[in-house]
Amino acid sequence: MGRVTERRRVLRIRDGAAGHRADTLVAEEPLEIRLNGRPLAITMRTPGDDFALAVGFLVSEGVLAAADEVTSVVYCAGATSDGTNTYNVVDVTLAPGVPMPDITLERNVYTTSSCGLCGKASLDAVRTATRLPIAEPTGRWLTPALLATLPDRLRSAQAVFDRTGGLHAAALFTAGGELLDVKEDVGRHNAVDKLVGRALRDGLLPLADRILMVSGRASFELAQKAVMAGIPVLAAVSAPSSLAVDLAAESGLTLVGFLRGSSMNVYAGESRIALPAAQTEPAG
Amino acid sequence: MGRVTERRRVLRIRDGAAGHRADTLVAEEPLEIRLNGRPLAITMRTPGDDFALAVGFLVSEGVLAAADEVTSVVYCAGATSDGTNTYNVVDVTLAPGVPMPDITLERNVYTTSSCGLCGKASLDAVRTATRLPIAEPTGRWLTPALLATLPDRLRSAQAVFDRTGGLHAAALFTAGGELLDVKEDVGRHNAVDKLVGRALRDGLLPLADRILMVSGRASFELAQKAVMAGIPVLAAVSAPSSLAVDLAAESGLTLVGFLRGSSMNVYAGESRIALPAAQTEPAG
Repeated sequence: MGRVTERRRVLRIRDGAAGHRADTLVAEEPLEIRLNGRPLAITMRTPGDDFALAVGFLVSEGVLAAADEVTSVVYCAGATSDGTNTYNVVDVTLAPGVPMPDITLERNVYTTSSCGLCGKASLDAVRTATRLPIAEPTGRWLTPALLATLPDRLRSAQAVFDRTGGLHAAALFTAGGELLDVKEDVGRHNAVDKLVGRALRDGLLPLADRILMVSGRASFELAQKAVMAGIPVLAAVSAPSSLAVDLAAESGLTLVGFLRGSSMNVYAGESRIALPAAQTEPAG
Repeated sequence: MGRVTERRRVLRIRDGAAGHRADTLVAEEPLEIRLNGRPLAITMRTPGDDFALAVGFLVSEGVLAAADEVTSVVYCAGATSDGTNTYNVVDVTLAPGVPMPDITLERNVYTTSSCGLCGKASLDAVRTATRLPIAEPTGRWLTPALLATLPDRLRSAQAVFDRTGGLHAAALFTAGGELLDVKEDVGRHNAVDKLVGRALRDGLLPLADRILMVSGRASFELAQKAVMAGIPVLAAVSAPSSLAVDLAAESGLTLVGFLRGSSMNVYAGESRIALPAAQTEPAG
């Protein structure tokens, strides 16, 4: 079975001096996700939490929204020439009555049938697929002081990053700032899928009143995954993209970027942010 | 037509004080790549260099290896309800006689027909698809001193990053360290495809004696793109993954990671690296 890290021999060069040593690398292996036995997607991921990754991916795709919609999740064994299980193929079986999605090349939340593909179509596709809409804001419960504590706590929870420097991380926090779960992966989308999939299996969807914190940038894809899991707040250490901001604004997602210490930008959903009234400027 | 950056209103919080202002964001829009009129793939990208992105993607997929294999690259217009061109759909027409790839859901360099999907299968798939093999090393032409200059020069060429903080970058350098081209994108794979596609259109493939430098980590996917374009050296600011190192070792790619000032790690292909003999330890 795959491991989270692997050792390789490396030539290390420091200020002109060179020498060989063993180095710890983050493991990357393909994972094929099958649905009722049919290949659906392949992602390059760090082994571990594979069942959570598979079902979390299916939440992002709008296929799953509750634990009882899944009958089983198994590694697909056999069929290799030597009969071994690579632990890189996961098959998710849907419960009776759960609709099987259209599995075709065109199956894609971004795809439209016309030449009109655009950011607006991407936003519409997410809206159509959403099964766990983000709840309306229930007051200004999110303080900048709490947000400011999250990056350091995410970073200190990144056990594998400390050894390899090669991992993205995503974490779920409660509204009070308690760290609930953290996942690391070579792909940041995988880290979020692992969080969401674990939550689904634990019967915790939608993730209302939770904060999703990611180690890097906030792309459309990450905002989409937050929206599909009903998470009301996405905080990122780095910059969001234009389309991530547009999706957040349309979906009621609070999107915080450049979260570094007491400094941050709120790009959408600021009605959840508590600010001293005297310190806010008039909305211009 | 799409723009590289977009403006959005943001709530900026600094040490408890808050105020609204306009912020510059990196633009993200979907791009659908069609081949002979048939949808092949969709990627979320920063608009610009779209034709280069499309043909570079096809080099990575093993479909293209030379400029004369392409008859035309056009934006697909019409078919929207209001008749406008979104400039988000690009159609590449292959020259007569160029084999059309198998366009099915299973079409994927990572896919195997069995349950045996594994890292080894991924390496085999790249080897099978390679049309521009990396040339054998022609001596130790690459010095750590030259490599040490690349990150700062990549960084200083990142015009859009300076305004948004939201972009990955990839650059091509000559063996002598001259910057030939740099591309920025929300997706680092897109930045590399744009570089490679531009080079294909200029008749420059394979990119022998070139150095590909990327702003972040070195994943399997980026190593694959270097291999498919015949680029002999991939240098990254951050960590490689295990599978990127394995692919580099198998393909004859020199892979440099954690390239920061005069400090770097060489993970594969060190026979291109010039080192004072007295400073190298015996191979262990």
